[in-house]
Amino acid sequence: MNRDFEVKEVPEIINASYRNFPLVAKVVFGKNSFDQLGEILMPNRKHADAPFIFLVDDVFEGTDLVKRIPLIFNDLVIFVSADEEPKTNQVDVLVERILEDFNELPSGIVGIGGGTLLDLSKAVSIVLTNKGGAANYQGWDLVQKASIYHVGIPTISGTGAEVSRTAVLLGPDRKLGINSDYTTFNQIILDPNLTQGVSKEQWFYTGMDCFIHCIESLNGTYLNAFSQSYGKNALELCKEVYLGDLTPSESRDKLMMASWHGGMSIAYSQVGVAHAMSYGLSFLLGVKHGIGNCLVFQHLAEFYPEGVVLFNRMKERHGIVLPKGICANLSDSDYDTMIVVAMGMEPLWENAIGKNWRDSITPEKLRSIYEKI
Amino acid sequence: MNRDFEVKEVPEIINASYRNFPLVAKVVFGKNSFDQLGEILMPNRKHADAPFIFLVDDVFEGTDLVKRIPLIFNDLVIFVSADEEPKTNQVDVLVERILEDFNELPSGIVGIGGGTLLDLSKAVSIVLTNKGGAANYQGWDLVQKASIYHVGIPTISGTGAEVSRTAVLLGPDRKLGINSDYTTFNQIILDPNLTQGVSKEQWFYTGMDCFIHCIESLNGTYLNAFSQSYGKNALELCKEVYLGDLTPSESRDKLMMASWHGGMSIAYSQVGVAHAMSYGLSFLLGVKHGIGNCLVFQHLAEFYPEGVVLFNRMKERHGIVLPKGICANLSDSDYDTMIVVAMGMEPLWENAIGKNWRDSITPEKLRSIYEKI
Repeated sequence: MNRDFEVKEVPEIINASYRNFPLVAKVVFGKNSFDQLGEILMPNRKHADAPFIFLVDDVFEGTDLVKRIPLIFNDLVIFVSADEEPKTNQVDVLVERILEDFNELPSGIVGIGGGTLLDLSKAVSIVLTNKGGAANYQGWDLVQKASIYHVGIPTISGTGAEVSRTAVLLGPDRKLGINSDYTTFNQIILDPNLTQGVSKEQWFYTGMDCFIHCIESLNGTYLNAFSQSYGKNALELCKEVYLGDLTPSESRDKLMMASWHGGMSIAYSQVGVAHAMSYGLSFLLGVKHGIGNCLVFQHLAEFYPEGVVLFNRMKERHGIVLPKGICANLSDSDYDTMIVVAMGMEPLWENAIGKNWRDSITPEKLRSIYEKI
Repeated sequence: MNRDFEVKEVPEIINASYRNFPLVAKVVFGKNSFDQLGEILMPNRKHADAPFIFLVDDVFEGTDLVKRIPLIFNDLVIFVSADEEPKTNQVDVLVERILEDFNELPSGIVGIGGGTLLDLSKAVSIVLTNKGGAANYQGWDLVQKASIYHVGIPTISGTGAEVSRTAVLLGPDRKLGINSDYTTFNQIILDPNLTQGVSKEQWFYTGMDCFIHCIESLNGTYLNAFSQSYGKNALELCKEVYLGDLTPSESRDKLMMASWHGGMSIAYSQVGVAHAMSYGLSFLLGVKHGIGNCLVFQHLAEFYPEGVVLFNRMKERHGIVLPKGICANLSDSDYDTMIVVAMGMEPLWENAIGKNWRDSITPEKLRSIYEKI
């Protein structure tokens, strides 16, 4: 949800109508619920020649998790690196490979990993039934035919990709989500045990994706009671996880639910200043989303005073040291690029500040913040 | 959700597997979102001869709301009284009428009203495609064929029927839900403006359905992090609505969301002492669900000390006076009947007290509580 390029996803009150939001069709939550996957897939198998394709983060290659994947017939596991953001080209290559390797369309796609794997799986399930490449569908409601059955199994918590109706992809000339009702997963398995073993830094940055999103949307002007209720819930859970005294098991449970509720809160809300400026960092320097948000957010006390106090407490509590001097050697032209990109995110500024945001958000203002990073 | 006969709906950890919970397919939230109904139904119209059937609480007969129903072609509005609990026989009569009046199966069913209308609509959509009467499907996962498209539009908040996978019906020899994945609505429209005009008492009792459910599930032994997060959210919203200082508009928004989250929390939780004992009252005396729960709950301070304190504050704040002497003239045999019925709700007691609940929950104990009512 709260990745860079959803920023154009304005919470619609278009023609005085509210977005009709698609939910994940089915969800199972529980420790080791991953082991129900075989039973869940069975009624969705079209026949023996229509395989399930498992797209799995390659950090799991050779691990016990892979042995637990319920392969039968001609099912296939494809390992995918999540080191870089998912690309339209990558989706097209996967689709081509699947169409070449099998005579039949698959019974379904199962994505196992973080936001990158989940978004790739959504996109592959769409492009398998819709002509042309993934780039054709970046935008809003461009998908014509129903995607094939697709299952998401998050192995890290915070992005909200498990509930969103978008699949954010880097395309040939833009980075933008495939936003459609067919994007949303048919099935999610929430198994908190799968998030064991994530490094402390990744756990923190990905969780902060959820936390910062909540702060931005709850303090925004676009909010309604639906999104507010989910956002508050996610925020409370983040506070428990990062500032409370939970057992590791409770902490995994609650962060998984924070991500779920945070993702749901996007239905009628929007992100704000941190996401807009993080987008600039990401565009110019390739800074990844989670850490990029943190780098910006720490300097946004004037916009989100309580949120930044909480963020700093969380950071200190977990001994997270953010890198410094990221913008130290940038040229004026570099700064201008970031500023133009950030200021282009109009809905985010409008959500954060209001209709008259241009009165206070000037290039000089943004430069002064970037210089601190 | 929290009506009498869902009590048998044990939150499944059957064979160490967790329930795979179906969600409502699409939801729209917003004031006057009811006016999007025509647009929402259009792509779901099979053709001009396959009507939409609108089942509407007869309190709305002749009101402006009925004029706003987007009727086209041979669509039909059927007014239904919600004075009594919905019955399997009532479902069968509606299905027969629809099958006789039209050559085609309807494009869909739209339920407009409270829990009674929502549950009737779910059941009609199932029995239209599954042979035999509604009573054949009371139980768990007995529905074989997909129901027809069905839409729920609540006009009062608290029951959670808008998100549950059950349709609770009074049958020829039992009152029990049609619990199935096909029961869940395909579309929900949450328009808080539709809850205007509800009497203060009905507003209180139906909202307390949600509040008491939350207290029982959050204090139960069955809870997991998924249901806890929804239950806490619903509880906080109930506190804001009944003890806060909201505008009427905010209050309607938040109670609608409380009901939604409270309903979701049923996925992996169970109700407790108030519901078990209220079931006894309902069985013997026909006391309706919302008020029945209140009548019991006020005397449950030893089980739910904080919950009862909150309940009493809410009751006083809104000048609600519960009837007294309900059990004053009952015979020993009457008391025994209620006690047998209440103690039969084993999962509720186990959830509330634990596996050894029979050590403390004796007939004498329950009689002493009933005598106060």
